[in-house]
Amino acid sequence: MFALRRGYGTNRHPVEKIRSSEMLVREVPTPALLVDVGVLDANLAAMAAALPALRLRPHVKAHKCTALAGRQAALGHTGFTCATIKEAEGMASAGLGRDLLVANEVVDARRLGRLVDAGHRVTLAVDSPDTVAAAAAGGVREVLIDVNVGLPRCGVAPEEAGALADNARACGLEVRGVMGYEGHAVLLEDRARRLEEVEQSAALLAGAHEAVGGAVISGGGTGTYDLNTLATEIQAGSYALMDTAYGRLGLPFGQAISVMATVISLNRAGGWAVADCGLKALGMDHGDPSMADGGAVLFCSDEHVVFAPPEGATLPSVGDLVRVIPAHVDPTVAYHDRMHLVAGEEVLDSWAVDLRGW
Amino acid sequence: MFALRRGYGTNRHPVEKIRSSEMLVREVPTPALLVDVGVLDANLAAMAAALPALRLRPHVKAHKCTALAGRQAALGHTGFTCATIKEAEGMASAGLGRDLLVANEVVDARRLGRLVDAGHRVTLAVDSPDTVAAAAAGGVREVLIDVNVGLPRCGVAPEEAGALADNARACGLEVRGVMGYEGHAVLLEDRARRLEEVEQSAALLAGAHEAVGGAVISGGGTGTYDLNTLATEIQAGSYALMDTAYGRLGLPFGQAISVMATVISLNRAGGWAVADCGLKALGMDHGDPSMADGGAVLFCSDEHVVFAPPEGATLPSVGDLVRVIPAHVDPTVAYHDRMHLVAGEEVLDSWAVDLRGW
Repeated sequence: MFALRRGYGTNRHPVEKIRSSEMLVREVPTPALLVDVGVLDANLAAMAAALPALRLRPHVKAHKCTALAGRQAALGHTGFTCATIKEAEGMASAGLGRDLLVANEVVDARRLGRLVDAGHRVTLAVDSPDTVAAAAAGGVREVLIDVNVGLPRCGVAPEEAGALADNARACGLEVRGVMGYEGHAVLLEDRARRLEEVEQSAALLAGAHEAVGGAVISGGGTGTYDLNTLATEIQAGSYALMDTAYGRLGLPFGQAISVMATVISLNRAGGWAVADCGLKALGMDHGDPSMADGGAVLFCSDEHVVFAPPEGATLPSVGDLVRVIPAHVDPTVAYHDRMHLVAGEEVLDSWAVDLRGW
Repeated sequence: MFALRRGYGTNRHPVEKIRSSEMLVREVPTPALLVDVGVLDANLAAMAAALPALRLRPHVKAHKCTALAGRQAALGHTGFTCATIKEAEGMASAGLGRDLLVANEVVDARRLGRLVDAGHRVTLAVDSPDTVAAAAAGGVREVLIDVNVGLPRCGVAPEEAGALADNARACGLEVRGVMGYEGHAVLLEDRARRLEEVEQSAALLAGAHEAVGGAVISGGGTGTYDLNTLATEIQAGSYALMDTAYGRLGLPFGQAISVMATVISLNRAGGWAVADCGLKALGMDHGDPSMADGGAVLFCSDEHVVFAPPEGATLPSVGDLVRVIPAHVDPTVAYHDRMHLVAGEEVLDSWAVDLRGW
């Protein structure tokens, strides 16, 4: 349908090797996910320096892209975190199934068992006798005991973790350790407050780990990657692409992703413009996106973002391209089937968002 | 991957003819979009009675499904509204391109021009000399003048509509009439207040139509389908599947769509359960979804909905299936690649959500 499909390499090649000038950014049909390769690479490098190799278990739910995961693996992070069975299957298919953690409970683990049978390493979170039984019945052999460390969601109570581990072992499962996600802390803007919550969660997880045993303590996220010093591996994902919610935390990661949109309508009397990036191209659970140029988003509808230019600036023209920064990267990426790697005015590659769905 | 792909008919067949008992609802992997065929058919029939044949121009953005559009066409609604070029292309490919309105501005109409060249009828909204020029350059031959009737988004000012129509005709375009979407009114819960806004919008649109001419006055939505008596055709879409936002309006359309989810975790001390339908399976711009059984949604994260059972009820069990009702149907459907047509415990068909993307 458009030229991008023609001359670009497969997902597997490092982007530097397939640099091409066949397509310019301004030729990409909108709305389109753009990833600034310089910012992406700087984010990946900064995290790899802070948490080298297996100290980071990148969460693929944030980008749902095996090509991007391949770049993380190339930096030494060869164990990955998945939120869904589909993500694990896609990672395995892409040759990235060396050590996959499905950091979520499932009640039917048969598809994961098939990955294990095919030679991939899959570890599954369990938080109840039911999910232990599902893991064993489905053919998964390794589990982490998922511990509730304060986020009101999944996880066994810390004081029950040891008994659940005994139960898992009695079912023939290898218990690799514990997992506890301090999701209630990762987006707190005040660093001291964030640290306080992380320490409270870590105390709960450390106690559970003592009762459970095993080499792995898995947890953390982009907002706590350097605060969570208990975890042997950090499950950060958003750091690679970033969003405005994490952007407020003063982390050493830049905004790599945006949605490019075309201005399709102007209202000079009202002082607003409309571009073709609506809420079907954005995750809206964290609220409205932001305009990269500092303009004010007035509202989004299915296929429109209505915005005012920055104070003192004039309205853009119909046909102009604008960049919209998502408030939440994960559900934004999940609406798109490709992300375009760009450097300046050039499109270097187009990566499939190939881990969508369930 | 699962049995659904085996024995079910193509999208084109009326569901009654391909009734099959090969799959039960409880066998569908979750999260999954379910459509209650009885409620869907009742909704389609109620609207067809109120707005027969071409009085309704169903908006496909709400369901993004050519199979569902085919049922609307079978009821006599053979003209359709699209929000994106992709939707128009998909409808044309499915043999539903007899009279497609792209009710949105575009600055590159070449893909639409190719549809026209292929024999499909495509009418495009224009609201500026730029979008008029784009329509003409792209090979589109028919347009509607999109008039701003109060929603702060697209549309030419009513008093400038006549001049824009002259401009379009001077560019060789056939002006079929006007379009004005009272999107600021469609979700107002108070019917009298909704009517008041509709009447104000209609007065503006009637004035614009007088200056523009043409047989078509297009507008309206599910919330105003019986209040907007000016429009010659109503662009309603949500009425077929519905959501909780429209559910509050007391319209004669039932809740046909839900997301089925599996309970994966319980917290008895906290009194909550967790199911595997998260915000990547839901449109969140209208806020949290609702539990079909009256339980209370506490929050959603990427792959989880955390909820409390209805007052007085006990927690479900791990493995139980629950139904989640989206707050906004359009962006919910856009996350899924299929919707499953169900009657009671049976899955009758699986329809591709084939109009996604751009």
